[in-house]
Amino acid sequence: MASSLIRGKYLLAGVPSEDSTEVISDGALYQEDGVIVEVGRFDDLKRRRSPDEVIGSGRQLVMPGLVNAHHHIGLTPFQLGSPDLALEPWIVVRSMNRDVDNYLDTLYCAIQMIESGITTVMHNHAAWRKGKGTDLHEMGREVLTAYRDSGMRVAFSFSHRDQNRVVYQEDERFLASLPPDLAAVMSERLKDSELSTGDYLGLFSDLKGEFGGDPRARVFLSPGNVQWCSDTFLEAVKEAAARHNAGIHIHLQESFYQKRYGLTRWGKTPLAHLQDLGFPGPEVSCAHGVWLTGPDIRLMAETGAMVCHNASSNLRLKSGVAPVNPMTAAGVTVALGIDEAGLNDDNDMLQEMRLVHKLHREPGVDGPAPTSHQVLRMATLNGAKATFFADQVGALEEGRRADVVLVNLEHIEEPYLHPDTNAVDALLYRGRGLDVDTVLVDGETVMRDRRMTRVNKSEVWADLKARLSRDLTPGELERIDAAQRLLPHVQRFYRQWPGEPGPSHYLYNQA
Amino acid sequence: MASSLIRGKYLLAGVPSEDSTEVISDGALYQEDGVIVEVGRFDDLKRRRSPDEVIGSGRQLVMPGLVNAHHHIGLTPFQLGSPDLALEPWIVVRSMNRDVDNYLDTLYCAIQMIESGITTVMHNHAAWRKGKGTDLHEMGREVLTAYRDSGMRVAFSFSHRDQNRVVYQEDERFLASLPPDLAAVMSERLKDSELSTGDYLGLFSDLKGEFGGDPRARVFLSPGNVQWCSDTFLEAVKEAAARHNAGIHIHLQESFYQKRYGLTRWGKTPLAHLQDLGFPGPEVSCAHGVWLTGPDIRLMAETGAMVCHNASSNLRLKSGVAPVNPMTAAGVTVALGIDEAGLNDDNDMLQEMRLVHKLHREPGVDGPAPTSHQVLRMATLNGAKATFFADQVGALEEGRRADVVLVNLEHIEEPYLHPDTNAVDALLYRGRGLDVDTVLVDGETVMRDRRMTRVNKSEVWADLKARLSRDLTPGELERIDAAQRLLPHVQRFYRQWPGEPGPSHYLYNQA
Repeated sequence: MASSLIRGKYLLAGVPSEDSTEVISDGALYQEDGVIVEVGRFDDLKRRRSPDEVIGSGRQLVMPGLVNAHHHIGLTPFQLGSPDLALEPWIVVRSMNRDVDNYLDTLYCAIQMIESGITTVMHNHAAWRKGKGTDLHEMGREVLTAYRDSGMRVAFSFSHRDQNRVVYQEDERFLASLPPDLAAVMSERLKDSELSTGDYLGLFSDLKGEFGGDPRARVFLSPGNVQWCSDTFLEAVKEAAARHNAGIHIHLQESFYQKRYGLTRWGKTPLAHLQDLGFPGPEVSCAHGVWLTGPDIRLMAETGAMVCHNASSNLRLKSGVAPVNPMTAAGVTVALGIDEAGLNDDNDMLQEMRLVHKLHREPGVDGPAPTSHQVLRMATLNGAKATFFADQVGALEEGRRADVVLVNLEHIEEPYLHPDTNAVDALLYRGRGLDVDTVLVDGETVMRDRRMTRVNKSEVWADLKARLSRDLTPGELERIDAAQRLLPHVQRFYRQWPGEPGPSHYLYNQA
Repeated sequence: MASSLIRGKYLLAGVPSEDSTEVISDGALYQEDGVIVEVGRFDDLKRRRSPDEVIGSGRQLVMPGLVNAHHHIGLTPFQLGSPDLALEPWIVVRSMNRDVDNYLDTLYCAIQMIESGITTVMHNHAAWRKGKGTDLHEMGREVLTAYRDSGMRVAFSFSHRDQNRVVYQEDERFLASLPPDLAAVMSERLKDSELSTGDYLGLFSDLKGEFGGDPRARVFLSPGNVQWCSDTFLEAVKEAAARHNAGIHIHLQESFYQKRYGLTRWGKTPLAHLQDLGFPGPEVSCAHGVWLTGPDIRLMAETGAMVCHNASSNLRLKSGVAPVNPMTAAGVTVALGIDEAGLNDDNDMLQEMRLVHKLHREPGVDGPAPTSHQVLRMATLNGAKATFFADQVGALEEGRRADVVLVNLEHIEEPYLHPDTNAVDALLYRGRGLDVDTVLVDGETVMRDRRMTRVNKSEVWADLKARLSRDLTPGELERIDAAQRLLPHVQRFYRQWPGEPGPSHYLYNQA
């Protein structure tokens, strides 16, 4: 039996309410075989327990492992050659980035995430982006194995599209509007990425069979987004989730155009259409939700569907600012995601938390604004719920798994920090991924003094660098060429969509 | 005569238009005695010049020194005990923070700024916050001497208020609404901070006499904000600026309440009132401008008055999101300021630039959004104009002063960055203050390999720490007590102000 006592100047035990965090000064937790046995004052626990090891100098901040509740790949799209654009044209360019080894790419990202204090991730992998001959089972295995090797917890899903795969219009109709040679290239690509509902569900249940027994892994279902999926597929997913007791992860009303698609197609928002199918429920987490209306937000709260909020991504891809304050006021569970990049293109979860803490501050002395405690809760307990690790992680409480992060306070507190400062405020205002010192999952140290214990970071870096310094393959060159030719057609398509200025959730400025 | 050749993998020579930066690959500049003599390819310059020294490994990015065009003090208000609130109550709490030695505090901040690539700052010091017996001349000397010792360029001003000094209402009237004992304390404080227009102008001309000859210093005039200054004072400042050929720095329409004050008092925005006084002009830089209307923005463009935009500060203090896109579209010169903290409470100018680059992206494929080149221009050439160093700094061009920053590219480019990536995009998407390696002002190295050359950073840190670890003085305790008692009255005052939801410049979300 392996045990340890983890101590800190402050220990953030949990976020019992929206306005407070349980902070234990000179605190500690005692864990045995990955389970938290006791949380309290270090002096008390030290007297009562005989751990194999004491972790922490007593000068750090100890907090629950953070949950990145929406993510895709490792090297960022920007690194791979896709600067930010509005979401829809960006998807076109981004989907044609060069190939990266899935195992290495996932390991690269897992290292970055652990370095910023993330211990659990919702990883959503694009099945729809597969090329000719791609073995999706193998791809899923590579990703899940990389997380297993890194030590992180993961809720993995393949996201699927079975309609409107280039723009928000029937594929045949859009392809008919393209120059014939480009239409032929795109038609070929679409054929290569086809996957039947049966094959998708088989892929899911195979991976669940293979990895679902791993206590650090969950396998989810994921229809890409409402406009990308037929009703038949959505219904099949809902049914399979119930049968397998699995989570569903979906993108929802990320952009203005997605909302508009629903209004045009069904005369209602995409969420309202999902509700007609009986889709929303407590097993469903929805990424983005930037364009949810007031009634949509109430519907989320009533059905227990969750939002995975991606503040940086929504800014970067011109999606907008999500109505997080109305969501939390309505009782919607809001978790936080980095969405494969974050504000600084480096997957720093503390930076993401800080942006959320600052971005949603509405003007005026009584304007709503998330508290630092709410943001911490979003990045811990709420993320745990979205990834189906609720009650297991997200707080440092007796009986939960020992996913623990130690943060150095030197940068935060030096040369001076007013002694009355709340520890959660201190972390949220001044903490950076760089300040994370040591990370444990299930009581196992996966990073110690900023060094990975399970994987060799410099080898991963060197290997990725070597592989990507090779010349582009003919297949990659072809994809890039097609993306460049396709881009203006996609932009023209959306330019024709009606704009719809109207009432806003937030009053950020005034003309 | 001292000369050097400064080389980089990329040299950002300047931003000739809104959509492009002149990037020289394997570039270099040759400087003699602080003046840039030639800019070009390293190989060419190396052949032709015999510098005393070559700076840079050839693997860095070389850019103009950045300009922080709106700033106050060193240790952040958060460090000193004031978490963020809406601007107006925050000012009350923040103005009663404990005392910090002005020289040390300025040096602390200058070090942080240099570390993030800032070589020029607009430093706006609160004369109105002075206590009993404060010698403002001495205070100004301490600040300006600290900048001189650090090597930075500074445009210094004392900001003044001669009315509405507690809330946006006549002082006597507001004090009459307070409990008598609190009113007495506040009345005493207001008396201590009084300064006549004559004394303010004398202070300005004395400091200008003493420091104005320093080629790295400018002394500006600064009425605090329109609601805080009488028309008489504003007119006296405008006249003195013309006489002394000096710049004017003013806060303007930072919060909703400030705009509302103008609408109630004069039936027009504060800027429109300033225009009635003939105040706006090309020597005037206005901090914030969050609540400028369409006509206000046109007026700024017509008069040549500039905006110093503070994106982080505007979020943190619940001021809102400034209409930067309408400003730039109208031709207003927009510079960038960190406003004594920045998003991460650490005065990182690259982080501020990145936030500006991401925050103002309006939804939709054609929604306006600042380019990375525009943001770089805001942080260089536009800042140079606002601080009265136009034509001297802000670009790496023949004849300008050699204010130069070398940025390590390792974090930005490793393990992979697509080879077609624009160097300015790379810097704006991924660069951090931490990546800044070496900084020169007037050709003099003020930081080399992240070590300050002129000041001892660890001594400054230790000295600040020692001084602030002392017990609070009775005077400090009294101020803190008064602030805590005053806060609810100030909040109640603004709660009574009418809200005014209306048309927005931006469509960020929709209810």
